[in-house]
Amino acid sequence: MLTLNQLSDKVTEYFNAEQFTGNPQQLFDPIAYTLAQGGKRIRPLLLLAANDLFGGDIEQARYAAIGIETFHNFTLLHDDLMDKSPVRRGKPTVYVKWDQNTAILSGDAMNILAFQYFLKTPHRNLHEILQTFQQTSMEICQGQQYDMNFEKRDDVTIPEYMEMIRLKTAVLLGGALKIGALYAEAAPSDTDAIYNFGINIGLAFQLRDDLLDAYGTLETFGKQPGTDIKDNKKTILFLKALQKGSPAQRQQLNALFATTPDDPTQKIKQVLDIYAQLDIRKEVETSIAELHNNAMKNLDSIARPESDKQPLQQIANKLLNRLI
Amino acid sequence: MLTLNQLSDKVTEYFNAEQFTGNPQQLFDPIAYTLAQGGKRIRPLLLLAANDLFGGDIEQARYAAIGIETFHNFTLLHDDLMDKSPVRRGKPTVYVKWDQNTAILSGDAMNILAFQYFLKTPHRNLHEILQTFQQTSMEICQGQQYDMNFEKRDDVTIPEYMEMIRLKTAVLLGGALKIGALYAEAAPSDTDAIYNFGINIGLAFQLRDDLLDAYGTLETFGKQPGTDIKDNKKTILFLKALQKGSPAQRQQLNALFATTPDDPTQKIKQVLDIYAQLDIRKEVETSIAELHNNAMKNLDSIARPESDKQPLQQIANKLLNRLI
Repeated sequence: MLTLNQLSDKVTEYFNAEQFTGNPQQLFDPIAYTLAQGGKRIRPLLLLAANDLFGGDIEQARYAAIGIETFHNFTLLHDDLMDKSPVRRGKPTVYVKWDQNTAILSGDAMNILAFQYFLKTPHRNLHEILQTFQQTSMEICQGQQYDMNFEKRDDVTIPEYMEMIRLKTAVLLGGALKIGALYAEAAPSDTDAIYNFGINIGLAFQLRDDLLDAYGTLETFGKQPGTDIKDNKKTILFLKALQKGSPAQRQQLNALFATTPDDPTQKIKQVLDIYAQLDIRKEVETSIAELHNNAMKNLDSIARPESDKQPLQQIANKLLNRLI
Repeated sequence: MLTLNQLSDKVTEYFNAEQFTGNPQQLFDPIAYTLAQGGKRIRPLLLLAANDLFGGDIEQARYAAIGIETFHNFTLLHDDLMDKSPVRRGKPTVYVKWDQNTAILSGDAMNILAFQYFLKTPHRNLHEILQTFQQTSMEICQGQQYDMNFEKRDDVTIPEYMEMIRLKTAVLLGGALKIGALYAEAAPSDTDAIYNFGINIGLAFQLRDDLLDAYGTLETFGKQPGTDIKDNKKTILFLKALQKGSPAQRQQLNALFATTPDDPTQKIKQVLDIYAQLDIRKEVETSIAELHNNAMKNLDSIARPESDKQPLQQIANKLLNRLI
């Protein structure tokens, strides 16, 4: 069994060994640029951790770990273009640094490259591994489309929101874990349990992200807090406030979310005031704790020594207890 | 053995049985719209024809045939956005009918959907089939990038052009044939031969397309002839004329290809005059005949009865002898 640090080192080692180069350079430069930004690389880490938990040969899962991170970064590359986000991880995004067509085509190539990585290592479970990867990939597109649809709707429900973040965020964590387990030839009940662990962690992770946007600092969150409010994004906080609020509070919230003032300071303050009146922060914290708890139950159901589960518990704690 | 008509009917039958629907509708509607336009569906036809030539069970190759056409249409969808082409097969393209983000995301989903089709049928050659499909997919991205690069260069050579069209067009014909052969468990020498047959046909097909743009009619070509000249596209005709022309003719051609007049009639006439002076049309016809001849040699090398090769010969003839 590897420790969390050892697993992290493996991820770093595997990525450092890859070049992401090819011809023509104009196609591959944006791919190498995107993957060089690093990021948390949480998905390959989960994949290797699950593989190790079930006693797999971690080298067999090596290229799947690279493939899943390549796929994740492809979705970010195209999302940044669709959302017109100029900066990611402190650097200009691909469509800004190069141009729109480069972002489209290099993204397409990254999607295909992710697959090629998965095909590098023959394995008796490869068919099921690829099916899991493909289903997950499609679900992420579905989640992104729901997210785009929600921007134009003012009647989004909390269950709809939870389903959207399940597709857009949680399934790739669940998929990474399941794929790691499949490389280790884990029992079906265990691959299901580790997948559900990932779904619960993923949902809680996104709720934590919504909270941090409202209550984090630039240092702890890495982004300017209040951006969701400024951009009128219907996060869990907004939806819960709409649900709990009085007619007057609902009207006030909807009115605030129909504006985009040049200086959003006052707007952010007013929205946070309503959230405070309704105790929204505490409610979302409770939801996160429940999801975290469900995730731990998923882990409990797996018949492996408690000590072997430590890396996954540590990753969950890191993701869900990010400081505000 | 099936006749060409029977193979065509199979392609139609298989496509008519697919719905291409899913949720959210906004993601899948553009996919169904694109695939409902039909087109020649030459790639699934080649895939099934190769499968049948080598005695395969054609039903096993069914979803690969749908997958390869889905992939091809994904590339058209994204290419139309990158090239800002408003019309395809007489209908508005996806980014025009919907919007740019829809074209990006639905295209991504189509790329993934193509893969999902390939995963539907387990097969002992599936790993090699997927590797062939993936390599082909990546090569098409490379070809598209070279094509985009060439627009900004004025020193493109004929070998570079041939390599670009090999990647952008020919490999998907070769790949379709090879995949059909792999489903039939053909011998490696045969899968190579049928792949090369596809490459030669694909190269000749693109040269025929270049010729038709200059010498076809709206009826036979389906597009307004002279578009490549109007758009200053460096086709094989232009590159051969540059190569063969006197310094004065070269200068004249380059000058003409630096203009974009509102009414291109005169420009098209002047360019065609230079092509006529240099006998370019005949030269390209000769290249097509050579490639066609090479393709027939590839087919000859395959140890199957001559009569069984008829459907592939007929497809090649149809593609390469399109009327001017």
